[in-house]
Amino acid sequence: MAESFPNGPLAGIRILDLSRVLAGPYATMVLNDLGAEVIKVEQPGRGDIARGNGPFIDGQSSYFMSINRGKRSITLDLSRPEGKDILLELVRKSDVLVENFVPGTMKRLGLDYEAVREHNPGLVYASCSGFGQTGPYAGKPAFDVVVQAMGGIMSVTGEPGGPPVRPGASIGDIMAGMFLCIGVLSALQERSRSGLGQMIDISMLDCQVALQENAFARYFATGEVPGPLGTRHPVFSPFQVFVTRDSHVAVAIAGDQWPLFCAVIDRVDIIDDPRFADGYLRTQNYAELEPILNAAFRSRDTFEWIRGFEEAGISCGPVNRIDQVAVDSQVVARNMFTEVVGPENRKYRVVNSPVQLSRTPASVVRTSPDLGQDTEGVLRDIAGMSPSQIESVRERGVI
Amino acid sequence: MAESFPNGPLAGIRILDLSRVLAGPYATMVLNDLGAEVIKVEQPGRGDIARGNGPFIDGQSSYFMSINRGKRSITLDLSRPEGKDILLELVRKSDVLVENFVPGTMKRLGLDYEAVREHNPGLVYASCSGFGQTGPYAGKPAFDVVVQAMGGIMSVTGEPGGPPVRPGASIGDIMAGMFLCIGVLSALQERSRSGLGQMIDISMLDCQVALQENAFARYFATGEVPGPLGTRHPVFSPFQVFVTRDSHVAVAIAGDQWPLFCAVIDRVDIIDDPRFADGYLRTQNYAELEPILNAAFRSRDTFEWIRGFEEAGISCGPVNRIDQVAVDSQVVARNMFTEVVGPENRKYRVVNSPVQLSRTPASVVRTSPDLGQDTEGVLRDIAGMSPSQIESVRERGVI
Repeated sequence: MAESFPNGPLAGIRILDLSRVLAGPYATMVLNDLGAEVIKVEQPGRGDIARGNGPFIDGQSSYFMSINRGKRSITLDLSRPEGKDILLELVRKSDVLVENFVPGTMKRLGLDYEAVREHNPGLVYASCSGFGQTGPYAGKPAFDVVVQAMGGIMSVTGEPGGPPVRPGASIGDIMAGMFLCIGVLSALQERSRSGLGQMIDISMLDCQVALQENAFARYFATGEVPGPLGTRHPVFSPFQVFVTRDSHVAVAIAGDQWPLFCAVIDRVDIIDDPRFADGYLRTQNYAELEPILNAAFRSRDTFEWIRGFEEAGISCGPVNRIDQVAVDSQVVARNMFTEVVGPENRKYRVVNSPVQLSRTPASVVRTSPDLGQDTEGVLRDIAGMSPSQIESVRERGVI
Repeated sequence: MAESFPNGPLAGIRILDLSRVLAGPYATMVLNDLGAEVIKVEQPGRGDIARGNGPFIDGQSSYFMSINRGKRSITLDLSRPEGKDILLELVRKSDVLVENFVPGTMKRLGLDYEAVREHNPGLVYASCSGFGQTGPYAGKPAFDVVVQAMGGIMSVTGEPGGPPVRPGASIGDIMAGMFLCIGVLSALQERSRSGLGQMIDISMLDCQVALQENAFARYFATGEVPGPLGTRHPVFSPFQVFVTRDSHVAVAIAGDQWPLFCAVIDRVDIIDDPRFADGYLRTQNYAELEPILNAAFRSRDTFEWIRGFEEAGISCGPVNRIDQVAVDSQVVARNMFTEVVGPENRKYRVVNSPVQLSRTPASVVRTSPDLGQDTEGVLRDIAGMSPSQIESVRERGVI
């Protein structure tokens, strides 16, 4: 069974995951798909608050299942000395600790990096927060939409002159989760030489800046403040979505494809127009180019445009809805949706790992855990507790 | 000098980078900032076409500099046998090869994974492409906007009922670059046990699906097709941007903060309204909640709202433009902008690595390389070629 023998590249790495909701859990999902063992440490009784996020299938949170499939779950009250002692025993047996509390929380619990490292100098301790562990906003709470707003991406998303728009995915959380993965894996690489762990401090706001390196590069180069452009690219043209006779089509040309593009849209007369001689000029003179292109694209249906551009070797495609992506032949051929088996043998579709490795493939091994379902096994097998010790902490509500 | 002694966690890892434009170069930038040596292999004469992307500062492409700072550059004509032989000699001395040609290109050059692995069984060979190395679209070219369109995110970004909108950053390329980093680092982790490399196959389209796991989870759970929501979140409310008396403010409440939120907006009368009793109901009944909130938010300026919500411990912030982010006190305190020194000792600002490590920090060590500036040194010191051998291939235009 895949469940018993994960063969991903991170097999053998154990992660203690104290994180909740999205940024941390997304990171540990990525690492779990790649073979790492993830022990999700949750508050007794309540657990990760994302367990309460709808919509639900058969009483299961689809939100929670999507990003916690494959993990183990234990309950542990970290505010009590016995809970803290058990966590520290697990720290001694783990490679990585991930947390995304508001900065200061782990210190109040006596579980900040300085305290925890004594128990395992090789531990990679990864913290993710809205604004990072340092700086004037460090103590402020943050959620995705606030970080997206403060990081600038809403100011460059939407229609020119229109209101700010949030990109339709939680990129505030997810970019931070991705950089957290990269930090953890880099620190493990370094540990293989030095034997030492270290602390990683990821700020969601910092990651928004990293995502927008090009907007900052343009601003630093020119002093011009980037604004929203609909579907257009700030540097290249044409590189956007057009309205067709029946819907939309996305088209992007490589540097030398302008004559080909003009041929496909039946406007060879503008190939040598000096206003449109290169990508930079086409962007500068877009106000004059736009009506020409808009008129051309309204003359045919999307499928005709795709056929024409594909024959010319020009990158193009439809603007898909989520239901269309879910059945797209390429996405399906790449096995990007997989199934996990839940209670009563029911199957649920989840998104697969996009990291395809030839020799030690990633895999989604099972559904998300019930709250605390692995407490006893983890306390016995990893923390080395006896049945009576486990019974004792259970009676006192520590687990 | 930082330049001579990179101390990031990936120090000692050598990456041969054949990639161009954005997805691959973004990935190798992230790895380079973390201490890996990146040798950019470029076409003689022309180089990475991104060298021609504006805007320019002092004749330098700001686009290219932003994502290629810190790398080395060599020129090598891979279509000629001597160029291929030199590349294979470098492969023997490297840990990782990254490429983002259209699938099939490396095979035509005789440099596909099967051919290259013979020369270094420990090599991690990472390919990034629009649609991946397999599946019906494998051979098609792809650029960011096309992948964003086909992957569904444009269908959930924008105003309800409005046209599709492209999120204002190249998330088609950048998400793929991030997953490529994670794949490479995971494969290196596995190699530390097995001694063996492997191939990584990243598809930009797959990565769009991975980014949108929540949209697919909701669709699979309910059958309802997600649509655009302006700045709102599909599951939580209030979790969005509001228009204030003078501009905008982003606000997001945690599960139990609804009464606090109502108090700040002076609407304690709706705290116990059964239509708005929890986050799910507030989302379901948003059409009734929206006019109440919109009216409240227009009554004060943004700074007043931020002061009020911060006092209540509710996550909030302004909607910043890029120029405002560039001077934001938190972003500056976190050192997210740094300088590289270019020709004639001129300094250029670039975005820093968001991966903060306590013991082996990331760093940006120098500006982007001139085309082929390191060819001679790399061929001599790494490929072990003599001055006369180097002169010979130079005369024949191989480098």
